[in-house]
Amino acid sequence: MGEFELIRNFFAAAPCAQGGEGVVLGIGDDCALLSVPSGEQLAISTDTLVAGVHFADPCDPFLLGQRSLAVAASDLAAMGATPLAFTLALTLPTVEADWLQAYARGLNHMAQRCDLRLIGGDTTRGPLCLTLTVFGRVPAGLALTRNGAQPGDLLCVGGELGNAAGALPLVLGQCSAEPAIAEPLLAHYWSPQPQLALGQALRGKATAALDISDGLLADCGHIAAVSRVGLRIENHRVPTSAALQTFLGAAQAQQAALSGGDDYVLAFTLPAAELPTLQAEGWPVHVIGRVVEGQGVGLVDEQGRDITPAIRGYQHFRA
Amino acid sequence: MGEFELIRNFFAAAPCAQGGEGVVLGIGDDCALLSVPSGEQLAISTDTLVAGVHFADPCDPFLLGQRSLAVAASDLAAMGATPLAFTLALTLPTVEADWLQAYARGLNHMAQRCDLRLIGGDTTRGPLCLTLTVFGRVPAGLALTRNGAQPGDLLCVGGELGNAAGALPLVLGQCSAEPAIAEPLLAHYWSPQPQLALGQALRGKATAALDISDGLLADCGHIAAVSRVGLRIENHRVPTSAALQTFLGAAQAQQAALSGGDDYVLAFTLPAAELPTLQAEGWPVHVIGRVVEGQGVGLVDEQGRDITPAIRGYQHFRA
Repeated sequence: MGEFELIRNFFAAAPCAQGGEGVVLGIGDDCALLSVPSGEQLAISTDTLVAGVHFADPCDPFLLGQRSLAVAASDLAAMGATPLAFTLALTLPTVEADWLQAYARGLNHMAQRCDLRLIGGDTTRGPLCLTLTVFGRVPAGLALTRNGAQPGDLLCVGGELGNAAGALPLVLGQCSAEPAIAEPLLAHYWSPQPQLALGQALRGKATAALDISDGLLADCGHIAAVSRVGLRIENHRVPTSAALQTFLGAAQAQQAALSGGDDYVLAFTLPAAELPTLQAEGWPVHVIGRVVEGQGVGLVDEQGRDITPAIRGYQHFRA
Repeated sequence: MGEFELIRNFFAAAPCAQGGEGVVLGIGDDCALLSVPSGEQLAISTDTLVAGVHFADPCDPFLLGQRSLAVAASDLAAMGATPLAFTLALTLPTVEADWLQAYARGLNHMAQRCDLRLIGGDTTRGPLCLTLTVFGRVPAGLALTRNGAQPGDLLCVGGELGNAAGALPLVLGQCSAEPAIAEPLLAHYWSPQPQLALGQALRGKATAALDISDGLLADCGHIAAVSRVGLRIENHRVPTSAALQTFLGAAQAQQAALSGGDDYVLAFTLPAAELPTLQAEGWPVHVIGRVVEGQGVGLVDEQGRDITPAIRGYQHFRA
């Protein structure tokens, strides 16, 4: 038995690969088989992480295991989908048992948190690269798309922004910070919490949604373009964490919240009438602006003055 | 707009990304959405191809486009699934418009042949690597698994074997051959024909099935192990092409058919009573042996003498 067949067996024996709702057939045959309840649709998203581009190489394989699945699962949250399963295509330069075990532990940890089962994939030799495809189910017609924001809707986010962008210099070892600051920022970077429950709560309520991966302004631009509306963001209402403010100062923290990537927090548009119930139920809904007639994304200060910067989302690589 | 966003738009505009049966939402949102008819299950398979490991680098991008999808679609054939859709995770070192256009043409060509729609994926910068995930549908309970071969069943394959392995020295430029020989062999390598229709015809008939990707003997070993039976292959009944026999000579051609990889021809076990109907309907069913009590894979010659070699499947990489 070759090394790579051993790896397949290793993942097949992982806790996150043991059956689960909707999984008819898991790892080991030519295909996996999923069942989707009648009246529901299957939501599918694929994310690739390349060593040296999307994460530092080397990095902690446990944290990478967590992060690689969280990033993909966040797309299920953005559609309001109930998590079902995922596949892992893992390309590795060498087979190192310690690395694999730590990676699988991180993956299992996040899979358990997200209620996702590993049902298949591929293991190949080559430069370190991970492609995860996640599957969820959503009642027909209730998926949260980017297309549906209406003038008058509130623009909301599901939590504080900018933490992951703030963490990046810490991740890259370019600077350090005391634990009270570094720990919450690094936790956001390495172990983002896909807002799966919030996404499901927004079904039938939010008119458009996505998860913020390229930065608030850039991602809001996607909603504006697809929904053919304008979005007006009130700068002072964009929530940032105390740790980020202390670490970067208020102005830089705000910049990170507007343009930083990797937040994996939901942004969504909501008829105002839906807000009280969601807030009463305790969902983290932060109103940061409005949907307006027009196009594009505008940023205003507390006095309503236009302070829109040249909008540029985070690009994973600049040529 | 960054280069990689342009690539996403380019693929979204490709012919193979335009709607289709079961595709509720294609490229452009956080997730794609598929609908699966009531009473059917979703079959899912993922394959990664790494430059320099699974294909020569550089290689013809049109041929790579065909081959990358065919290899993945063959797993749908092996389950008896009806093709629905696929995702493409493409990691590229540089963005070259000519390369991308040729790759997309090859992909479109095979997608049309296999009736598969591109519904999403990811595009990232890094060492050239492709991960394709394919989706099909199959009536609940009728998927062809590897687990179900019964002693007494016939062991069959869906066509000639060894052509792709025979083509490999031509692909690598290690030798040449006259067009009448080289062309059919190279066609098998670069443009395998996933046996999707045959797979669907075998639903409810074959007791076990897979597609031969690691070599006949190695892959039959998977059926034997999972079904807990033995397989007895009659060497002289394993079909090989005239081109392969001329190119390699009879003995080497037979070796390529037994142990060569990348055939993407179906191997399956079949109750003898099912054979006449399938043959009458014109399906390519070649009986090459029997399922027997016991375990493992044995090879016998025309006189019934055991000539089983040390079985070793093709490994993509040997450490």
